[in-house]
Amino acid sequence: MEPGLAIDRLVSQLSALVGDRVTTSAPIRQRHGQDESYHAPHPPDAVVFPRTTDEVVQIVRLCAAARMPIVPFGVGTSLEGNIAAVRGGVCLDMGQMNRIVEVNREDLDCRVQPGVTRKQLNRELNGTGLFFPIDPGADATLGGMASTRGSGTMAVRYGTMRENVLGLEVVLADGRVIRTSRRARKSAAGYDLTRLFVGAEGTLGVITEVTARLHPVPEAISAAVCPFPGLEAAIETVILTIQMGIPVARIEILDEVMMEAVNRHSKLDYPRQPTLFFEFHGSEAAVAEQAQRVGEIAREHGGAGFRWAARPEDRSRLWHARDNTLYAALGLRPGARAMITDVCVPISRLAECMLATRADIDRSGLTVCIVGHVGDGNFHLLILVDPNDPEEIARATDLHDAMVMRALALQGTCTGEHGVGMGKMGFLQAELGEAVSVMRQVKRSLDPDGIMNPGKIFAD
Amino acid sequence: MEPGLAIDRLVSQLSALVGDRVTTSAPIRQRHGQDESYHAPHPPDAVVFPRTTDEVVQIVRLCAAARMPIVPFGVGTSLEGNIAAVRGGVCLDMGQMNRIVEVNREDLDCRVQPGVTRKQLNRELNGTGLFFPIDPGADATLGGMASTRGSGTMAVRYGTMRENVLGLEVVLADGRVIRTSRRARKSAAGYDLTRLFVGAEGTLGVITEVTARLHPVPEAISAAVCPFPGLEAAIETVILTIQMGIPVARIEILDEVMMEAVNRHSKLDYPRQPTLFFEFHGSEAAVAEQAQRVGEIAREHGGAGFRWAARPEDRSRLWHARDNTLYAALGLRPGARAMITDVCVPISRLAECMLATRADIDRSGLTVCIVGHVGDGNFHLLILVDPNDPEEIARATDLHDAMVMRALALQGTCTGEHGVGMGKMGFLQAELGEAVSVMRQVKRSLDPDGIMNPGKIFAD
Repeated sequence: MEPGLAIDRLVSQLSALVGDRVTTSAPIRQRHGQDESYHAPHPPDAVVFPRTTDEVVQIVRLCAAARMPIVPFGVGTSLEGNIAAVRGGVCLDMGQMNRIVEVNREDLDCRVQPGVTRKQLNRELNGTGLFFPIDPGADATLGGMASTRGSGTMAVRYGTMRENVLGLEVVLADGRVIRTSRRARKSAAGYDLTRLFVGAEGTLGVITEVTARLHPVPEAISAAVCPFPGLEAAIETVILTIQMGIPVARIEILDEVMMEAVNRHSKLDYPRQPTLFFEFHGSEAAVAEQAQRVGEIAREHGGAGFRWAARPEDRSRLWHARDNTLYAALGLRPGARAMITDVCVPISRLAECMLATRADIDRSGLTVCIVGHVGDGNFHLLILVDPNDPEEIARATDLHDAMVMRALALQGTCTGEHGVGMGKMGFLQAELGEAVSVMRQVKRSLDPDGIMNPGKIFAD
Repeated sequence: MEPGLAIDRLVSQLSALVGDRVTTSAPIRQRHGQDESYHAPHPPDAVVFPRTTDEVVQIVRLCAAARMPIVPFGVGTSLEGNIAAVRGGVCLDMGQMNRIVEVNREDLDCRVQPGVTRKQLNRELNGTGLFFPIDPGADATLGGMASTRGSGTMAVRYGTMRENVLGLEVVLADGRVIRTSRRARKSAAGYDLTRLFVGAEGTLGVITEVTARLHPVPEAISAAVCPFPGLEAAIETVILTIQMGIPVARIEILDEVMMEAVNRHSKLDYPRQPTLFFEFHGSEAAVAEQAQRVGEIAREHGGAGFRWAARPEDRSRLWHARDNTLYAALGLRPGARAMITDVCVPISRLAECMLATRADIDRSGLTVCIVGHVGDGNFHLLILVDPNDPEEIARATDLHDAMVMRALALQGTCTGEHGVGMGKMGFLQAELGEAVSVMRQVKRSLDPDGIMNPGKIFAD
């Protein structure tokens, strides 16, 4: 059948199933073909909005019969083109499956549909004494964050989606529905299918329900900020903090260019130096003790001007700089777009990796801020590029590629939290070699026709 | 070829490769066919002792060419017949691959060969300020613990092998060698192959190196013990402790029969009541505060006689009872063997699950102790059976089966930490249904001839 005819026929089958919750409207397709990354848009041929797992099953069966690609979609905040429909096909926008099914306070867990966003979940949890800690910045869906193995600022204390997903309901490429685990907090019952689907970016199935771990809202939260004479000193402070077992909830680094940007953006007057932002969770006494100890370590490493705040309004003021890095960076160069990169290295290699990257940046002549979840060794560049200047984009790409290859040389990974998507496929091969062929074997066994989000993670 | 001839030929090929490090000696084969469980022994046809990954590759290739089963073996402390050679074949005793390859203090990780035991590793770490927290009781190997997704008493604070393995080197059924990840603390680089092999019980490949997370030795450790009027009160104390975010390092429960056994065994005089054992890790101030808060919660729930100890010798005395549960239980019935069971349920269902199980026990007329990693909802029965009394073994089996099915009915799992092995295959099907067929698909894609530890996790 002609591709155009095949999609027309599929769309009419889908509309018999879900009525007007399937569309081929150009603006809607376009919105579903572009995430927040710099990658080229790839709109799907159609977008469908399922409301139940059973509808997902029927949709997947229809697509499978037509050998039509299926691309699951949350809110489109991914950063490596993870939702781009590179082979066309049908986008499954999970946004209408956004019900919080249950919250189990005694067990510190919840079951939610995949379209629930993290902020929605935390609003719902308000008053329960519990919260969901994964905070990638964007108000992403739990299904999306599970698919990309997202994390963010609090991973150093609470882990990533890997550690915070207890179980999944998944619709497979042939329409079977599985639950990857029961609700016990630990299990040794067979292969860890939960972790197989967390991070699979929709290439193995469609997540239709997430059972997530919740955490107690800390009794007290305090924050601290400290500038350092250089990156090494800042990172030595982080390493020692972690080696001493101080259970920091967040440790973020902003480099001197990023600090300059936030100063301008928020009319602040932080020193133009690499700066650590800390958050501490625990009892009143514990957060005070943690801050005091970290302050001592910071001072030993030349951190002058360690500022600590326990009151909410003071904490907000201290962290305000960190919370607005993207807009602050964009403010350095109006009209530019930010190319956002993502690597993660062992923290012993982090200073080396960042400093060499900073030297590359200086040689490149580009405007670039560095921001990092430094407790995990994970950092990002915000490379400000003129989207209409191919030469500049080429320079930015060279900078990006050099950074990733350096991270790999330092025993790191090509992606700490954004996933492979379409942007890191070549680097994944460089990182894991033969292991990628094992991923392909697993993929082929569960999706022999290659209809689940094709052209992601590895070439199809 | 006749089976006997096939193995003779394979053994001569193996001995050309490794010299006298392959054997068909009956005592050695018998020792490798029986773990610490009550399951029937299944000796392999031969045992080989590789020393390098390359030797493992050659051995696997020879076995694959002969379609001969391969059973990886650590020290044989598994509890579900995980190492039994149910289809015969070659046991790979990894005990001579026991080198600690590197310890990265700044990154809080290490690379070790799979035959390194947890106590060996912790001895080696002495003086570094770091330790490896997974403690399943036995001095198991890291390869074995990774294979069964082991955990133990400290999982409530430090996680299980799932969270503490950063990466693996694995030899696949066709002799390919892969590394499942680099050394970064987090990564979103493709499918989580590390977690796929952790818990696969050697059915997907042979683990030849483990990169493990380490943790800072806490500055202070304190312990506490408290008896409760009943199981519900004890478990409510645990739930509230966790809900309040008190970062306990261990919380163990011993039921009244277990307490009677430890009193007799160690000449102690604890009340014959369900009793919680706590351990707290942190700064001096933090452990004191944690103990004080848990003490308050315990008192609110009728826990009278909360005893707390910070000095090492006093801690040891308090925990002595917990550390000797197996021998204490066996002391209740000299000549008996302990059938050890393992389920895990959401902690909100734990009291119900334990109480119903205790009622079953009382009806059974058997002597049974209950001990549990109660912070995770994981508990074990030590069922004391006369190994020569089939009727009694049948009663014990009924009790075991009823406990597992109850755990499943309460949204729990058939195994919290011992794995499926040969003992839980039917229950795994009951627990996860269609998901087991997905495990089979993955198995088939990586081991099409079914030579890797066949007859485990699911029927071959």
